[in-house]
Amino acid sequence: MESTMHLGVCYYPEHWPETRWAEDARLMREVGLTRVRIGEFAWSRIEPAPGRFDWGWLDRAVETLHAAGLSIIMGTPTATPPKWLVDRMPDMVPLDRDGRSRGFGSRRHYCFSHAGYREEAARITRAVAERYGAHPGVVAWQTDNEYGCHDTVQSFSPAARDAFPRWLADRYGTVGALNEAWGNVFWSMEYRGFDEIELPNLTVTEVNPAHWLAFRRFSSDQVVSFNRAQVEILRELSPGRDVTHNAMGFYTGYDHHDLAADLDVLGWDSYPLGFLEMFRFSEEDKRRYARQGHPDIAAFHHDLYRGCAKGGRWSVLEQQPGPVNWARYNPAPLPGMVRLWTLEAYAHGAELVSYFRWRQFPKAQEQMHAGLLRPDGEPAPALAEVRQVAAELDQLGQAGEAVKHAALVFDYAGEWMTQSQPQGEGRSALWAAMACYSALRRLGLNVDILPPTAALVGYSLIVVPCLPTVPATLIGALDAGEAQIVIGPRFGSRDTDFAIPDALVDPDVERLLRGKVVRSESLADRIAMEGDGWQARGWLDHYEGDAEPEFVTSDGWVTGYRLGRLRLCTAWPEGTFIERLVERAANDAGLPAVALAEGIRRRSCGNRNFAFDYTSGTVCIDPPV
Amino acid sequence: MESTMHLGVCYYPEHWPETRWAEDARLMREVGLTRVRIGEFAWSRIEPAPGRFDWGWLDRAVETLHAAGLSIIMGTPTATPPKWLVDRMPDMVPLDRDGRSRGFGSRRHYCFSHAGYREEAARITRAVAERYGAHPGVVAWQTDNEYGCHDTVQSFSPAARDAFPRWLADRYGTVGALNEAWGNVFWSMEYRGFDEIELPNLTVTEVNPAHWLAFRRFSSDQVVSFNRAQVEILRELSPGRDVTHNAMGFYTGYDHHDLAADLDVLGWDSYPLGFLEMFRFSEEDKRRYARQGHPDIAAFHHDLYRGCAKGGRWSVLEQQPGPVNWARYNPAPLPGMVRLWTLEAYAHGAELVSYFRWRQFPKAQEQMHAGLLRPDGEPAPALAEVRQVAAELDQLGQAGEAVKHAALVFDYAGEWMTQSQPQGEGRSALWAAMACYSALRRLGLNVDILPPTAALVGYSLIVVPCLPTVPATLIGALDAGEAQIVIGPRFGSRDTDFAIPDALVDPDVERLLRGKVVRSESLADRIAMEGDGWQARGWLDHYEGDAEPEFVTSDGWVTGYRLGRLRLCTAWPEGTFIERLVERAANDAGLPAVALAEGIRRRSCGNRNFAFDYTSGTVCIDPPV
Amino acid sequence: MESTMHLGVCYYPEHWPETRWAEDARLMREVGLTRVRIGEFAWSRIEPAPGRFDWGWLDRAVETLHAAGLSIIMGTPTATPPKWLVDRMPDMVPLDRDGRSRGFGSRRHYCFSHAGYREEAARITRAVAERYGAHPGVVAWQTDNEYGCHDTVQSFSPAARDAFPRWLADRYGTVGALNEAWGNVFWSMEYRGFDEIELPNLTVTEVNPAHWLAFRRFSSDQVVSFNRAQVEILRELSPGRDVTHNAMGFYTGYDHHDLAADLDVLGWDSYPLGFLEMFRFSEEDKRRYARQGHPDIAAFHHDLYRGCAKGGRWSVLEQQPGPVNWARYNPAPLPGMVRLWTLEAYAHGAELVSYFRWRQFPKAQEQMHAGLLRPDGEPAPALAEVRQVAAELDQLGQAGEAVKHAALVFDYAGEWMTQSQPQGEGRSALWAAMACYSALRRLGLNVDILPPTAALVGYSLIVVPCLPTVPATLIGALDAGEAQIVIGPRFGSRDTDFAIPDALVDPDVERLLRGKVVRSESLADRIAMEGDGWQARGWLDHYEGDAEPEFVTSDGWVTGYRLGRLRLCTAWPEGTFIERLVERAANDAGLPAVALAEGIRRRSCGNRNFAFDYTSGTVCIDPPV
Repeated sequence: MESTMHLGVCYYPEHWPETRWAEDARLMREVGLTRVRIGEFAWSRIEPAPGRFDWGWLDRAVETLHAAGLSIIMGTPTATPPKWLVDRMPDMVPLDRDGRSRGFGSRRHYCFSHAGYREEAARITRAVAERYGAHPGVVAWQTDNEYGCHDTVQSFSPAARDAFPRWLADRYGTVGALNEAWGNVFWSMEYRGFDEIELPNLTVTEVNPAHWLAFRRFSSDQVVSFNRAQVEILRELSPGRDVTHNAMGFYTGYDHHDLAADLDVLGWDSYPLGFLEMFRFSEEDKRRYARQGHPDIAAFHHDLYRGCAKGGRWSVLEQQPGPVNWARYNPAPLPGMVRLWTLEAYAHGAELVSYFRWRQFPKAQEQMHAGLLRPDGEPAPALAEVRQVAAELDQLGQAGEAVKHAALVFDYAGEWMTQSQPQGEGRSALWAAMACYSALRRLGLNVDILPPTAALVGYSLIVVPCLPTVPATLIGALDAGEAQIVIGPRFGSRDTDFAIPDALVDPDVERLLRGKVVRSESLADRIAMEGDGWQARGWLDHYEGDAEPEFVTSDGWVTGYRLGRLRLCTAWPEGTFIERLVERAANDAGLPAVALAEGIRRRSCGNRNFAFDYTSGTVCIDPPV
Repeated sequence: MESTMHLGVCYYPEHWPETRWAEDARLMREVGLTRVRIGEFAWSRIEPAPGRFDWGWLDRAVETLHAAGLSIIMGTPTATPPKWLVDRMPDMVPLDRDGRSRGFGSRRHYCFSHAGYREEAARITRAVAERYGAHPGVVAWQTDNEYGCHDTVQSFSPAARDAFPRWLADRYGTVGALNEAWGNVFWSMEYRGFDEIELPNLTVTEVNPAHWLAFRRFSSDQVVSFNRAQVEILRELSPGRDVTHNAMGFYTGYDHHDLAADLDVLGWDSYPLGFLEMFRFSEEDKRRYARQGHPDIAAFHHDLYRGCAKGGRWSVLEQQPGPVNWARYNPAPLPGMVRLWTLEAYAHGAELVSYFRWRQFPKAQEQMHAGLLRPDGEPAPALAEVRQVAAELDQLGQAGEAVKHAALVFDYAGEWMTQSQPQGEGRSALWAAMACYSALRRLGLNVDILPPTAALVGYSLIVVPCLPTVPATLIGALDAGEAQIVIGPRFGSRDTDFAIPDALVDPDVERLLRGKVVRSESLADRIAMEGDGWQARGWLDHYEGDAEPEFVTSDGWVTGYRLGRLRLCTAWPEGTFIERLVERAANDAGLPAVALAEGIRRRSCGNRNFAFDYTSGTVCIDPPV
Repeated sequence: MESTMHLGVCYYPEHWPETRWAEDARLMREVGLTRVRIGEFAWSRIEPAPGRFDWGWLDRAVETLHAAGLSIIMGTPTATPPKWLVDRMPDMVPLDRDGRSRGFGSRRHYCFSHAGYREEAARITRAVAERYGAHPGVVAWQTDNEYGCHDTVQSFSPAARDAFPRWLADRYGTVGALNEAWGNVFWSMEYRGFDEIELPNLTVTEVNPAHWLAFRRFSSDQVVSFNRAQVEILRELSPGRDVTHNAMGFYTGYDHHDLAADLDVLGWDSYPLGFLEMFRFSEEDKRRYARQGHPDIAAFHHDLYRGCAKGGRWSVLEQQPGPVNWARYNPAPLPGMVRLWTLEAYAHGAELVSYFRWRQFPKAQEQMHAGLLRPDGEPAPALAEVRQVAAELDQLGQAGEAVKHAALVFDYAGEWMTQSQPQGEGRSALWAAMACYSALRRLGLNVDILPPTAALVGYSLIVVPCLPTVPATLIGALDAGEAQIVIGPRFGSRDTDFAIPDALVDPDVERLLRGKVVRSESLADRIAMEGDGWQARGWLDHYEGDAEPEFVTSDGWVTGYRLGRLRLCTAWPEGTFIERLVERAANDAGLPAVALAEGIRRRSCGNRNFAFDYTSGTVCIDPPV
């Protein structure tokens, strides 16, 4: 019985002597790896000088890996254009928000709007695809690498300044329509033509949030079209192969639904320890889970990207196997965690877990980033865990379909809105989603994270943590079923151009809530709103309508209402407040909700139950393999 | 009986359909408003293209408001030059300290030193004044809007680089005099001509503080002359109307005494909740007064700007009526606070309180900033309070003269000195003044905040929290009367060009203090100097002279001296130390000082006593109306 | 009997009337000063216009001082080029990492790589040296002033961009060798020629640490060669005089061993109170020692710079005598501290302690920086202490040779490596050295801080806190003796080009450790590793080899190993962990180690023992003078 989930590894043959390649490939196979990702940073070796290609080494690497029985995921090398290319087109580099050049010397030194670089990216993609597109060892392609890494989606370059007004003209038709939609009469910001519109940086104070939102959309679209150009070449020259890309964690610089629409499989790069340290987890969690990562980090992204992916096909393209180099502090995973993370991805439906990377390169920026092998070629601790889990996966076979419990609705444009106008510092749709997700997961529930346009069929509980713009289809979906519903702040409070609707919310939203929020206030964390066994913070919506107060603080503030099967959070959906509220909703939904012990998470799929213990790094599989 | 204090509102007819205007005007009158401020951001509607004016809509708005019985305060629209103007003069924008452009896209995108923009500002002011200067409905003019908002007084542009040396030549006559005054022999900073002198930015380390102080003075003067040009046009074309401007809170970017000298009435914009969150109040106060603002915020500015205003005529041109959008966190005022703030302004002598704004605009930068109406046109909670307080003010009639208790001396240039050379981080003349003001107000005293050149007649207590440069007239005023005097650190420690006097202080100061401070040390907040029932921090002056130690710490440091009716603080005048010291001085002055309960402030004027309770948002008026 | 240590003072005759000079000189001598440093900021007075020299005033100043019996240390004025020079060569100014100009207006506004400025610096040095090189009153020269102050060693100017590739070509020979050494195949960073290599700034994310390290080396070398050019002129024109320079505290911008190789005496500028406030000491220490400085600050630099200096000749060229102006907070020294610091420098072997400065100048940037005289010419408190200590030093005579206890190995390039790649935030070789030094000093031991190339003969204990690159000679030195050895993290983990060695460490290191560290993790401070009476934090190396665990936490982590006379720290060498470990090593070495009371430090030299009490500001000398 073979697992449907493959194990793979990221490999850089150009870092190592050719004489070592066959041994590396043999060992990969021996420990149970079947996929190998190569090529995504190798432009300077593929084309060492303009127009002069050196295919020999890569041909031999492909042959060696293929001969060993490994299937290859080939990367397009566009994330690292070589120096000679930048010197020929110095204006291809992005500019940052302060107008500073972001030049050669690391990676991602290109502006997505630069027409010349787009041509070069197409040229090198075509060259690589022509060379390997029909190779039997190549089973998939990865475009570029981590779009947006190092904050590179937004560029304030002349190229972007040229492209943005054209994008706006396409969207709005007339500049009058744009002025009206954005409310540019405010502060005399009206434009007489699209060409007058500049990038939203280097202003005296904040720009119109509608201007900023449009720039976020434009920037996201530039990534999507840049990627699409590569996908089209790959589909033409390498038919039958999957095309994928590796997304990142807690990253919302582009709309992943839009990108995924052009891909067969959506991948992501999972670094739980680095993410714990760098993102907004409590000091207590950072201490407790320093060598494990917070128990919801990996699963949140598994469930998010599965919901973004066309047909639900997703994978982990880079899996942390040891200490990384880029977090403030870089501990080593607890023994067992590499196996745990792998099995968790499996339980959440991954097609592939690919470890980053085979062997730690002793030089350059990531010299302190672990691999499965140490720099000296000896096994790192993760290798034994990989060998073990590969065998277990073979025993487990197909993961099977997950039971549907709860759906959680998340929208990238909604997060862009809360980022640019949080009203209270740090009140973010993404982190509201994370808190709601965590509350659900602590109850042992399966969660699907879905866009607001999804059908939402078959769920007993639907949670919408923070969705400023509500499409009509979502109202329909919420109306239609019998699910318990939890609605968080800012629901339906904006149109697609960042304007408050005429009646404060859309009429459909008002009908759904049998009332509406008539004003909102944001509160500092220092102000706690305390109820019976819970605390709420950060936000207070004032609702007027038919719903009944359900969560009331000791001094009379209402932080939660109930209206039949719908609950409305009027405080920010975080902390013990949202835990209690979600618990009630789950119980009302008849879900098998149980408060799990600290650090335990569950996943039910097919006929199996998995319990992941993040305190000890162990996994309990029932029935056992 | 009609109150002498008017209530008004800021209104943007250009944001709303013409069909709504009459209803808005009717409702304004109905709730008791008599003033309406319009026009200050409408340039793009008044002159939609270069030289093409569209007066029709504004004519009709003025007629509609006037017909409803409202008196109009018309704004000059120079805070928001339209895009076409910036495109014609791209170098009109300010540059920030790092040399970055501060361009179009928000507001205040102009450099005060740019001659071309000065001409354009005069041209549009003249155009508006010609159109409405004689209109019977127009009773006052506001120049521009919030000079200096978003840190725009200082510009590091080529225009400023040209103007600064000319200003220096006017001030110093010869470059030798400047070199001598600034001490430029230090570090070989001597200049051979005024044209060699650059703006004080982009240097290796701190510039000469005398250089910086001169630039602060120059920048302030540029604002004053920019404003004066508008005032002269308005006086010519709209005789008999008041000219005003709206200053800000905790803002010292220009010398408000100088600006006010050209105005009839000095206005300011009062946002107590936003100021509490954004300025240096304790975490405890930020928690306790989140929905009220600290009890001294509004009153401090009332008393400060009354002292700046020519003839003491002042008003609140923008009054917060609900949550704002620009603070880190934006709570709603406690019920009653809008009424309380209004009555407090009345008790401190305001001519007008104008709420910002009539109706919340659902788009653009301030879409989350409340008005008296919600975005959907329904009343926001503040409207009922306005209606109530309008009726009460009618009952109250004239506020009457305030009893003179204490004078507090504050000087803008003094604050510039402490900002550029605090010696201990954050030791600021402004915040020393605020702490002393608060100490006086907690004792229930009336306070006038006055410049050091004021006569200071009739006060029983005079407090000079931090005044580096002491004019001779102040020594005379202190010598003359019988008032108790409190003198804080840095008194007389600098000449007008930021040099320490030859004898460490001026001879007059030494005579007044019968001694002098011979050295100063600054101390971190972590170091407490504890006495009997008080703590002092932050600073320690070493005084040598005839005064007697009065405040001595348990380990022997002297933080306060007494010399007859004069007290000298040698620690920083903040905290319980200054509270105790001020209390003694007030008692010695025979003032009716009583320690008020937390959150209570009083004001006696005419035959009435007001008590403002910031904990509950209530006001006690005695005798009652 | 005369002390071999001179006392001196920094004097600026150009700040004061000529009529005062003779009195100043007389008073200097009267209180016991014999050296006076002058001239280092006086370019604008020496050459007030291009090519026009004004020597008269300086001739007279030199004569006056000389006539009074003072020996002169003359400074070259190259730290403060005058405005006319910058205006003639505007591109001589450095650019910061963001590409911003660092122009005229303070000091150090020159780029070390600018050929034009190098010529000008040589020209003015030659002019001053020709004038005074043979003067009998001039006994020494100081080049420039505080190289690197205000972060000026690194410049990202066009001049540096030109010079860097030439420096690289000299170092690497071929660009292929550079690509190989740096691992530029990673991320396609390979260069085809040296001219393609840019300065390591304005990149998208971090540059290759090998690139950065090379730039640090280049920048350091530029300082050394800039200095050497002046030294050569001074040796030619002023034979027989010492040449010195004044280094700074906690500053590693250039390699002080390299600079000192060209000097006769290495000086440094000691400001214990400012350093305490501005550097990484605990809040508790900052509170406890606010008026004293941490007890190890001055001594650490004495012992460090003595180890850098050719022949061990060193001095304190600027000694804090009162409050400074440049720290966040600037308290005054406790009475006695100026004497204590002076005697401590004496006990550590200084040739000279020169107070900064004679008289506080009442203007410009440092107007709040104390001197021995106040701005009004009256004595500041320090003057009496100077008078006292001068007399005591006369009694003490020659300090005598210090007993050799412990050697501590520190390397500038090692610190550059940990700065650019700490792996855990703030884990720095310099501060590891400081912690180890402090642990040794709390035991009452004499310490010599030495480069890894030093002979290390005669020490009972050798501590190597953090040395990424280990020269073969060090292995030899460690092998050779009988000393106890303490080795900290990262030992031998990098080659000179920042690459991890093939076998993780050099073979010699592996042999020494009879094993090696096979992986490293960094940990946040929030994670404590607790043992019996000690806590370790911040780092955990995993060692495999023959050494025995000696320090084991309660949950089984090994933070320290022992192997015969060698100890290996596998946690970061700070806190109580390193105190316990060093204590064991000192005991095993048979050293007279005793745990001193808080604030006490000792130094044994010649036949005397000094005990410095930082809590009270007193010194105990045994036998007494």
